[in-house]
Amino acid sequence: MSGNTFGTLFTVTTFGESHGPAIGCVIDGCPPGLALSEQDIQPELDRRKPGTSRHVTQRQEADKVEILSGVYQGKTTGTPITLLIRNEDQRSKDYGNIVDTFRPGHADFTYWNKYGVRDPRGGGRSSARLTAPVVGAAAIAKKWLKEKFGTSFQGGMTQLGEIAIPFQSWEHTPNNPFFAPTGDGAIIAELETYMDALRKDGDSIGARIDVVANNVPIGLGEPIYDKLDADIAYAMMGINAVKGVEIGAGFACVAQRGSEHGDEITESGFLSNNSGGILGGISTGQEIRVSIAIKPTSSIRTPKRSIDRSGNPVMVETFGRHDPCVGIRATPIAEAMLALVLMDHVLRDRAQCADVVRKGSGLT
Amino acid sequence: MSGNTFGTLFTVTTFGESHGPAIGCVIDGCPPGLALSEQDIQPELDRRKPGTSRHVTQRQEADKVEILSGVYQGKTTGTPITLLIRNEDQRSKDYGNIVDTFRPGHADFTYWNKYGVRDPRGGGRSSARLTAPVVGAAAIAKKWLKEKFGTSFQGGMTQLGEIAIPFQSWEHTPNNPFFAPTGDGAIIAELETYMDALRKDGDSIGARIDVVANNVPIGLGEPIYDKLDADIAYAMMGINAVKGVEIGAGFACVAQRGSEHGDEITESGFLSNNSGGILGGISTGQEIRVSIAIKPTSSIRTPKRSIDRSGNPVMVETFGRHDPCVGIRATPIAEAMLALVLMDHVLRDRAQCADVVRKGSGLT
Amino acid sequence: MSGNTFGTLFTVTTFGESHGPAIGCVIDGCPPGLALSEQDIQPELDRRKPGTSRHVTQRQEADKVEILSGVYQGKTTGTPITLLIRNEDQRSKDYGNIVDTFRPGHADFTYWNKYGVRDPRGGGRSSARLTAPVVGAAAIAKKWLKEKFGTSFQGGMTQLGEIAIPFQSWEHTPNNPFFAPTGDGAIIAELETYMDALRKDGDSIGARIDVVANNVPIGLGEPIYDKLDADIAYAMMGINAVKGVEIGAGFACVAQRGSEHGDEITESGFLSNNSGGILGGISTGQEIRVSIAIKPTSSIRTPKRSIDRSGNPVMVETFGRHDPCVGIRATPIAEAMLALVLMDHVLRDRAQCADVVRKGSGLT
Amino acid sequence: MSGNTFGTLFTVTTFGESHGPAIGCVIDGCPPGLALSEQDIQPELDRRKPGTSRHVTQRQEADKVEILSGVYQGKTTGTPITLLIRNEDQRSKDYGNIVDTFRPGHADFTYWNKYGVRDPRGGGRSSARLTAPVVGAAAIAKKWLKEKFGTSFQGGMTQLGEIAIPFQSWEHTPNNPFFAPTGDGAIIAELETYMDALRKDGDSIGARIDVVANNVPIGLGEPIYDKLDADIAYAMMGINAVKGVEIGAGFACVAQRGSEHGDEITESGFLSNNSGGILGGISTGQEIRVSIAIKPTSSIRTPKRSIDRSGNPVMVETFGRHDPCVGIRATPIAEAMLALVLMDHVLRDRAQCADVVRKGSGLT
Repeated sequence: MSGNTFGTLFTVTTFGESHGPAIGCVIDGCPPGLALSEQDIQPELDRRKPGTSRHVTQRQEADKVEILSGVYQGKTTGTPITLLIRNEDQRSKDYGNIVDTFRPGHADFTYWNKYGVRDPRGGGRSSARLTAPVVGAAAIAKKWLKEKFGTSFQGGMTQLGEIAIPFQSWEHTPNNPFFAPTGDGAIIAELETYMDALRKDGDSIGARIDVVANNVPIGLGEPIYDKLDADIAYAMMGINAVKGVEIGAGFACVAQRGSEHGDEITESGFLSNNSGGILGGISTGQEIRVSIAIKPTSSIRTPKRSIDRSGNPVMVETFGRHDPCVGIRATPIAEAMLALVLMDHVLRDRAQCADVVRKGSGLT
Repeated sequence: MSGNTFGTLFTVTTFGESHGPAIGCVIDGCPPGLALSEQDIQPELDRRKPGTSRHVTQRQEADKVEILSGVYQGKTTGTPITLLIRNEDQRSKDYGNIVDTFRPGHADFTYWNKYGVRDPRGGGRSSARLTAPVVGAAAIAKKWLKEKFGTSFQGGMTQLGEIAIPFQSWEHTPNNPFFAPTGDGAIIAELETYMDALRKDGDSIGARIDVVANNVPIGLGEPIYDKLDADIAYAMMGINAVKGVEIGAGFACVAQRGSEHGDEITESGFLSNNSGGILGGISTGQEIRVSIAIKPTSSIRTPKRSIDRSGNPVMVETFGRHDPCVGIRATPIAEAMLALVLMDHVLRDRAQCADVVRKGSGLT
Repeated sequence: MSGNTFGTLFTVTTFGESHGPAIGCVIDGCPPGLALSEQDIQPELDRRKPGTSRHVTQRQEADKVEILSGVYQGKTTGTPITLLIRNEDQRSKDYGNIVDTFRPGHADFTYWNKYGVRDPRGGGRSSARLTAPVVGAAAIAKKWLKEKFGTSFQGGMTQLGEIAIPFQSWEHTPNNPFFAPTGDGAIIAELETYMDALRKDGDSIGARIDVVANNVPIGLGEPIYDKLDADIAYAMMGINAVKGVEIGAGFACVAQRGSEHGDEITESGFLSNNSGGILGGISTGQEIRVSIAIKPTSSIRTPKRSIDRSGNPVMVETFGRHDPCVGIRATPIAEAMLALVLMDHVLRDRAQCADVVRKGSGLT
Repeated sequence: MSGNTFGTLFTVTTFGESHGPAIGCVIDGCPPGLALSEQDIQPELDRRKPGTSRHVTQRQEADKVEILSGVYQGKTTGTPITLLIRNEDQRSKDYGNIVDTFRPGHADFTYWNKYGVRDPRGGGRSSARLTAPVVGAAAIAKKWLKEKFGTSFQGGMTQLGEIAIPFQSWEHTPNNPFFAPTGDGAIIAELETYMDALRKDGDSIGARIDVVANNVPIGLGEPIYDKLDADIAYAMMGINAVKGVEIGAGFACVAQRGSEHGDEITESGFLSNNSGGILGGISTGQEIRVSIAIKPTSSIRTPKRSIDRSGNPVMVETFGRHDPCVGIRATPIAEAMLALVLMDHVLRDRAQCADVVRKGSGLT
């Protein structure tokens, strides 16, 4: 209830701080019998890990995952699966200058007020490093959903600062440092130049990330509150630095008429996807479409006005190894959150509705 | 767990269908000793109820609330408070033509697939009518927060279709049928003309709603998952027809630099509010700022392609009494959801952090 | 979270006070498609209701149940089912003398200390009258379990004060006022005489109740904490006046050796049932066996020492219409709690383990 | 939701298997600012650990605990505290003979049926070894409750097989291998002789354990379902091998009259404690009194009839290192569960009732 557990039936309880001895999570509710080893999880962690290009933090973390429980003879047993990741590169001295001051736009102000405790080591619990265990947990959900329904997840950056990135194909995202869904080298070059200038300025920038899921079963989502889109919004807004979430048409729907927005249905399926694959909080079977806005990181070299713990005015500049655009590494995280939400809702749906035979709409 | 309960410590469990005998909710976790009667709740329901202008549904519902439990001699006892609202105007015949077909953009398609049951009476459980009990429950939360911290809530429409509504003051919202925060008669007239034309066309339109809360205690929100902004996003996206949620700067942060976005702090407080009053998922004590996008209703007279329950192609036109812009009545609902989230987090915060003395930042 | 909701996936949220306008509950998570009407529920309420013999309270309550939501055209829709029972016989004057004093052994002392509010109307929320909605909710669970697995529930009184009631058959329980599983008229006469004398004395007495469930699926129960027996113990100890719970051999196992206690298994099944149908917290497929101890009611005419709200010494005698042995009406309540626990665990089990094919043990 | 998390606001999520690489738990909801190190936790683990006398399993486990998160500069931060205990003595070969058969009275039968997976390594997840992390977690709760309210916990064995152990004082429990609350050397000698004979027979035996808590705040417990006694019953029945739970007078109340059972109150407090410190599910401020029945372990050398995974009849004898009386090591576990329940309810109570001033009864 203290907010460190994600999910209802497929739950992920994370633990650890950015610069403590280790981070990790306990995954409860995984169906038994799934073939699972560290090799299923590590690739997702590698997509998210720091130090993969000059545009992200240079902190060196292998993010090597160890399974501590819940797997026997290569298969899940139905008992809690624990993932452990030891922290390796804990240069706490980098944070020396922010022990007593609050970075504008950073959680250190609110954590200190809430808990009366200051853990300045790399953001402590509020660090984006804590998304690593979740990405690991989601690798398990992704594998199970893939085997069960053929569900797949893709995502990428569609805007960096003011540079819109025209969508070509998700297949391009592994081939550039930005998870940009484009094969256009000119755009990638523009992004690289932009980031280089930004780094030189000691500043940071926001980004927009889109994620989708395909082959999603129809009928996922609970009415009224635990709607599928509500749970997705919760999951996405819970990612560090996210300030906005859209499903399907998102804010564009404000200017749409009903005659345009409502996705028509034919015998061969929906003709459009303004709904983002969700109607009344329940999945339609179409592609789930989600967009998020990620703010620029608050740890920048540019000096800003702030106060210290005694309330005295100070100027704050943050050194250390920070991402100038946390959005760059956000794609695997957003995919992970989407996978966890879908996994949870599959289990919830079959609890109550396992007896419902879904047929007859011509679409399933 | 079937998604009909909102909240963790201050919970609201709603029940009922649009055209069944009654709707209502059970509120659990309300602190004892709060003076409470129907007169505290009815005004909020009256703000939301149908039939108050020609621009909303003409269904006649008094939405008269009865307290069935949890109050003794005019005070809450700490036991569950039950609110009951009898349905009065149940002209089910209006829905006769949609019993076997699916409205494009409507939940009737997904409900039927999920549950294998069709309740065509006015949307059944998926009807926006089910927001009434929540508005009632939130009236209690608002009263408690007001007495305890002086917390207040305001909201209004800031865009209707393509018409942006420049913000003047929240005090104007009761004086026009749109909850528009403007005293500019020309703008109100433009909105009225727009809606009249839309109704004549048999079409519907989207809207953007902003809500804020003031005098919010610092320190609300749980780290990692049950962040205050994540719970707000969940609450807002769970409102019928919402497709997007923003906190503070929202999607505008994509194009912001860190040097611009991070709100500077001085001895007398924050100098800006890009954060929307939330950092690291925890309230800063500033105004909480939330925006939502509401899609156009799917129940329109304009014919659209769809299928029936056997998968055969049909054309669907919806008659009956529907809101051409569900956004018009959304303001009190959005305020209500925000109030419920804050109430819940106050209780959660004092469970764990009641011993923390919050002082010294100069801001609290 | 304030403890008025029972269950995890099949949840029952009760509301109301003994002498308020109404009591009832909201049942969430019921699978859709179950044929259901008031006629399925009323008979269980009738088994529990007061005034059925001279040995129980003479309060006149028809306990007539109304379904307010969740059922359409005679079938459950998967949305919340609300049961409403209006209170009819609210002679609050009977309680006039206990407004300011605390009955020894009664919840009025602790409620007042916890909530700072005194609701003296018949025990208010702590009244055993609040078991009525739960019995109603359990009627739905019983029906679903019966249709799905053929599960059946029986129970009865096996001891009244110092009088042990030798078990003959559950089929006798409807034929005497005690739910005694015996057809021996001499024993029934002894019980009647005993109760008549007790009433004359203005005193009350304890009882022991046994309940069983048959045709329970194998595999119900979650490991470590939400064990099936742990959840049964929680459910039973939560019934008003219960002070002890046993599963299977219960406290007799203290003096058993392992060579005696462990139930042997053969090709045709288990040879004994010391386990009470549960091993390691998970159902074995055998009969579930539970016993509970019910204390004598604290509302008696015999004067006892106590204090008033100011801490001054007083003598308390309770008049009004109370059960001299609350155990007499406890059988349907205990069956109800067992049914709710099993229902919930069936849904939980199929969420995680729907893919497990249970075979090969020769027993299922 | 899969039952590996204990608690509502102070939650303990355990993980690990008896013979996997490690066991441990994540504790969420601990108030910030509590001084904490491994030295606060290890002593409780040492009380529970195996190999401390010839009467318990000879498995050699140091049960050395490591804190992985949630503590900074010697104080809790309010974030999740993770305890890790590496397994050391994993002689899995001891279990070779039970890979394909089911021990009568053991969870291996039900686990296999539920999950379709067999983890024969020392009982896997169902092993009583998994109580170690909980004892560790409870050490934190005990410390916090001690500092806050002066709450203390004691417990001990009051019956071994047919040998009743007359209570003298809790202070004797550390001075004999049974946690017997007696200084009578003759009784201890009798117990030792009994256990020696039992071991020689290759058999096992049950036990009765009593635990108490003193200086418990008044007002803990939620009405109707999450009663304090219901949650205690759940916690206790969830301990491996427990088959019965009593609060206060327990089953003795069946034969009590109300005039005897109801604890009288005077200006200086209660005159007796049949209630076990709980009325209407809420603590009275008196000593909390709980008794549990622990069955004889099922892993014995005495041959018993069973079946194998194909349903064929077999004779099962269990070798390996098992406790002949699991009750001997159960005292610290039962104390731990009681501490966790009280801790959780303190947090729940202050969430809802922090504003209630508890005074005036003369007792608080």
